[in-house]
Amino acid sequence: MSNITTEQMRFWSPAVRELEPYVPGEQPKIQNLIKLNTNENPFPPSPKVVAAVQAVLEHSADALRLYPDPDASALKQAIAKQQGVEINQVFVGNGSDEVLAHIYKAFFLHDEAVLYPDISYSFYPVYSQFFAAKTKVIPVNDNFEIDVADYKQPNGGVIIANPNAPTSIALPLDKIEEILQANPDRVVVIDEAYVDFGAESAVSLVNKYDNLVVCQTTSKSRSLAGLRVGFAIAQAHLIAALEAVKNSFNSYPIDRFAIAAAVASFEDQEYFVEQCQKVINNREKLVKDLEALGFKVLPSKANFIFVTLPAKDAGKLATELREKGIIVRYFNKARIDQYLRITIGTEQENQRLVDTLKNEILK
Amino acid sequence: MSNITTEQMRFWSPAVRELEPYVPGEQPKIQNLIKLNTNENPFPPSPKVVAAVQAVLEHSADALRLYPDPDASALKQAIAKQQGVEINQVFVGNGSDEVLAHIYKAFFLHDEAVLYPDISYSFYPVYSQFFAAKTKVIPVNDNFEIDVADYKQPNGGVIIANPNAPTSIALPLDKIEEILQANPDRVVVIDEAYVDFGAESAVSLVNKYDNLVVCQTTSKSRSLAGLRVGFAIAQAHLIAALEAVKNSFNSYPIDRFAIAAAVASFEDQEYFVEQCQKVINNREKLVKDLEALGFKVLPSKANFIFVTLPAKDAGKLATELREKGIIVRYFNKARIDQYLRITIGTEQENQRLVDTLKNEILK
Repeated sequence: MSNITTEQMRFWSPAVRELEPYVPGEQPKIQNLIKLNTNENPFPPSPKVVAAVQAVLEHSADALRLYPDPDASALKQAIAKQQGVEINQVFVGNGSDEVLAHIYKAFFLHDEAVLYPDISYSFYPVYSQFFAAKTKVIPVNDNFEIDVADYKQPNGGVIIANPNAPTSIALPLDKIEEILQANPDRVVVIDEAYVDFGAESAVSLVNKYDNLVVCQTTSKSRSLAGLRVGFAIAQAHLIAALEAVKNSFNSYPIDRFAIAAAVASFEDQEYFVEQCQKVINNREKLVKDLEALGFKVLPSKANFIFVTLPAKDAGKLATELREKGIIVRYFNKARIDQYLRITIGTEQENQRLVDTLKNEILK
Repeated sequence: MSNITTEQMRFWSPAVRELEPYVPGEQPKIQNLIKLNTNENPFPPSPKVVAAVQAVLEHSADALRLYPDPDASALKQAIAKQQGVEINQVFVGNGSDEVLAHIYKAFFLHDEAVLYPDISYSFYPVYSQFFAAKTKVIPVNDNFEIDVADYKQPNGGVIIANPNAPTSIALPLDKIEEILQANPDRVVVIDEAYVDFGAESAVSLVNKYDNLVVCQTTSKSRSLAGLRVGFAIAQAHLIAALEAVKNSFNSYPIDRFAIAAAVASFEDQEYFVEQCQKVINNREKLVKDLEALGFKVLPSKANFIFVTLPAKDAGKLATELREKGIIVRYFNKARIDQYLRITIGTEQENQRLVDTLKNEILK
């Protein structure tokens, strides 16, 4: 905000003057970079996604003049079927970030503080500030693990990324059940952006717990970051709160192309399972290769790994990798400033990362 | 919310329990209806829009795995060029409803009340409630006109739809300048969703007034309601506030298809001008035909008209039209419950409306 004068600031709502917005990972416009910085899938979406958008162009391009279904019912139905829940247990939004924003508004504005880990998705503190939600940040332990005992105190809601980001560590479902049982009067949100790469989804617990909201996205495991479709699964009474919020903010968040494309993705379960397995395989190979180079790698259930090299400053390493055309994510933040978050790439990309480290940077 | 129990409501943030969400016009799934209820354009978008999405599918479908540009710079550039402003004077969002929501958060949360007309876009009171904005509703006069003198009192911001909806009446720019001059310390928002059908845009005033925000949409005049792209034009210091809000809510609101499609629309000025003129021509014809049937039609600069038939109850008329396969918008609201808002259709649709009224309903 440095170029805005105090005089100009008089127009801004006072609370907005204090906002510290989220800073997304860089989307460089440079060609031929190896982009391992924003946890995108290295593989393209299902060919059926492309075919579905093609079909919209061929058969209903004129319908672009018409608003989309405000409820995106076709998409909710496809998600419900794939997830094994009822359609009224599904909420959809313009990316899981919008879903999370609506979750904050719907469930977290109580008198007590929302709880989340200190090392987690860096949008949570941004939402807390945006919605003026009372907040208590809970440190993870020295192994970057969440201790569920910390979430058994009075609170205004709990949000936990599982697997956590940027640590990549997953909590097992029995630990999540402990948190759910300890908070019968508050909503517990499990943010499962990365769950499809080997962790256990809490969707299987939705019918058992009336205080559970699970949030997922099509951006990672479905290779649709370019499309902006996120969703939440919960019992119908919680989905109703999200709908009330959404319909007080923006009636039609999901456009006609996005609805058609996402439906096609959810209908192609075979492709989805295959691609996730490929990412997992690539991850296991990359972990071994980096460990052989002396890296310490946290146990990952995500499509990224969180690594540190005891002999080398992490910020410096990120800079040197960038000079070689490889971007990874570095967080200049207490506790994790000696770590790098590296997205799992294709076999070729991962190999080039390993070769660059071995032959050029650490030689 | 009738099916949510009080016990289940304990999870909801207290303020959310009170929300009265916006109710969009019906999007019926029935075929062969004449749909004159949501102010969509009767003509399809530019063929270049379809070609642009086709090009994404052919040349960069794999890029769907990647996040879109969070700033949608290509789209901002296309809008800036078409509107004759700088790129840092453009803000884009997921439909103009999202842009309006961000405007509320960015500019309207002061100690004084936001002002808007009693008869106007029915999302304004929803935003006021959602953001807990102090609000003072100003009655339009008996001719449904805005008296600018009413907007010269202390306030926390002003929002006026121009042309106004559902009245269709436009304010001339000199009247808007009076409001801008009377409020040097507060933002005045001119919501121009319908401006391209014959009203004067306040975009020409943006460089003159540091307190002006103009909001527009691609949903009406560009036939892209199905795509969800809205935008605001203002001086850079005001755009910065909107960016701070947007980046605290959702980093990537506009997907890759929507960016490509909207860019193509802004680059096809010739098609845009032609289609708007066709809608205006159809409007003028429809107004004459309805006046011949005894309707009173407010003077419209929009792609809809606001009409009343002294001899017939408006709600009853809407019901009878629906029975004949024609949907128009009826607001069961004080002051306007004897009016219908009718979207301008194709020549054939308008003719069928007139014929149905003449030969079946009013015979």
